[in-house]
Amino acid sequence: MDITELETPVPVVDIDCMEANIARLQAYLDEHKIANRPHIKTHKIPAIARMQMDAGAIGITCQKVSEAEVMADAGFDDIFIPYNIIGESKLKRLMSLAARVHISVTADSGFTVQGLSKAAQQADLTLKVLVECDMGAQRCGVQSPHEAAELARLIAHLPNLSFGGLMTYPNTERLDDFVRETRSLLKDDGLQIERVSGGGTPCMWEAHTHPELTEHRPGIYVYGDRLTMRSGAVTLDTCALKIVATIVSRPTSDRGILDAGSKTLSSDLHGLEGYGYICEYPEAKIYHLSEEHGHIDFSACARKPEIGERVSIIPNHCCTVTSLFDEVVGVRGDQVEVTWQVTARSTVT
Amino acid sequence: MDITELETPVPVVDIDCMEANIARLQAYLDEHKIANRPHIKTHKIPAIARMQMDAGAIGITCQKVSEAEVMADAGFDDIFIPYNIIGESKLKRLMSLAARVHISVTADSGFTVQGLSKAAQQADLTLKVLVECDMGAQRCGVQSPHEAAELARLIAHLPNLSFGGLMTYPNTERLDDFVRETRSLLKDDGLQIERVSGGGTPCMWEAHTHPELTEHRPGIYVYGDRLTMRSGAVTLDTCALKIVATIVSRPTSDRGILDAGSKTLSSDLHGLEGYGYICEYPEAKIYHLSEEHGHIDFSACARKPEIGERVSIIPNHCCTVTSLFDEVVGVRGDQVEVTWQVTARSTVT
Repeated sequence: MDITELETPVPVVDIDCMEANIARLQAYLDEHKIANRPHIKTHKIPAIARMQMDAGAIGITCQKVSEAEVMADAGFDDIFIPYNIIGESKLKRLMSLAARVHISVTADSGFTVQGLSKAAQQADLTLKVLVECDMGAQRCGVQSPHEAAELARLIAHLPNLSFGGLMTYPNTERLDDFVRETRSLLKDDGLQIERVSGGGTPCMWEAHTHPELTEHRPGIYVYGDRLTMRSGAVTLDTCALKIVATIVSRPTSDRGILDAGSKTLSSDLHGLEGYGYICEYPEAKIYHLSEEHGHIDFSACARKPEIGERVSIIPNHCCTVTSLFDEVVGVRGDQVEVTWQVTARSTVT
Repeated sequence: MDITELETPVPVVDIDCMEANIARLQAYLDEHKIANRPHIKTHKIPAIARMQMDAGAIGITCQKVSEAEVMADAGFDDIFIPYNIIGESKLKRLMSLAARVHISVTADSGFTVQGLSKAAQQADLTLKVLVECDMGAQRCGVQSPHEAAELARLIAHLPNLSFGGLMTYPNTERLDDFVRETRSLLKDDGLQIERVSGGGTPCMWEAHTHPELTEHRPGIYVYGDRLTMRSGAVTLDTCALKIVATIVSRPTSDRGILDAGSKTLSSDLHGLEGYGYICEYPEAKIYHLSEEHGHIDFSACARKPEIGERVSIIPNHCCTVTSLFDEVVGVRGDQVEVTWQVTARSTVT
């Protein structure tokens, strides 16, 4: 099928481009002896995770239990869930997973760690837990090497848990000092920091500048988007995912309306101007989204589009777009090669 | 099942509250002899659309063909799709629908109308088309009564289409004059404006101030959200939908992290401050969302939450939240009564 026969709006992946993205980062991490553990939240598609594994990844990263369940069902057997997993029912599902594949998780509090230990005891297995560290991004994470060491000791002390190392997101300049200080604090306890897991696509090409980093969890690098273009980590040419959409209205000479709104492109801005980059009209601005309409200002464009014309949009943030579609289409050139189900799309915890 | 047994994050609807919302607006529109044609994009759940019909709605509104297909399959036989439907394949699906249930659509250009006529001819049926009018909101729509009359004449003139009236969103103060001027322009053509369809929850209680309005398309009124609270059309007490989430981290004394991020609450802001209203902590601010984490500033709260505590969040915009969940839970008091599939969730065109 030719790409022009697809109904819009539709997310389209250039497979050649994605394969090159996967190979390029893997070669870089291999060269620097950093393990690659890609984050599947970006695509949520087992077949793409398989490509990442085939290229040399050591395992995968999922952000929640439901994603890990889908990936375990698809045959992936080494899954990291860098999340504080809380609540009896969810912990039970986690332990069911840990009984059949290698699971590691993170925690940043005694509360989380106590819950993990109790559930692991009930399931009669040992769970690997890394300490999540806030190295400046002010997300989750313990605030200091002192707190990290304290939590590591608690993990090592509690029944049915093993201390698995340190995790952070994204990699910052504090990373190496933070790890060294924590290691020094743990020396007398005989606790090794076996893994130091970092993450992020914007910072991926600087992974080698962190001697303490043992693995990296890139997500967006497979697809690329405007956010990672801004960071310089990907370019217009290495963006593999585009949303193909149709101009459905031209109410005025300067204004155009797309059949792609917030339920297609998501409302993620993260400081960017506009809600996506229109490849055919780089000067155009998607200045507003309603749910099924994108509102575009074409005043800066010398040529302006006709109703019925199709355009390709690089979204601001590909990960939030993924959650909005049941299917993603893979193409080579203008030909549709495959339709992938976004199997781990569900938001259900 | 008790609500506390649900895993988080989970969208929960207070059924009593929703039923009251449905009844209240229906009574108001009945009193003013304005037909109610609720927009199902807000919930995408056939069972809730059925409640709206049972209360007295004359039909439903869908924003795209895929939503209408789901609703037609569920037995709804009068569906309005206020959208410029373009493209051969999608027009074919539209005509398949029109062959089995009453369908009306909108158009704001000759391009759209020509496509509808051609497809209706091929399907050997007559399609009702309303003219979409921009009455100040600068979305889709013809810009003036003159343009509206011109497009109405084209619809009436082209094979297999019938002119169905005027449509706008949202209702503005221009509405009545716009309709009267268009009617006057169409007098000599013998064309009647049988329907004047307006929309919007924020303006729903002013529907009666538009003598020209014959039907209204409210969406959000079933659930309520922060956007419609800001407008005054709903209140804290009439918000039926809340996202129940768990505090999974308390990295600092002021900061808390929820297990609900942009893939749960959506990033819709529409000028609001923060990404949702936390009922238990009204002074808290959800200042940032990552995909599976909501970042909260609790500094203004006298009491601060513990890790593991559950909170209820009124989202900024309930319609974009709907697209992110496979299921919505309906409760009475603290008891789960029903789990609805969000059947029309798909973004697939």
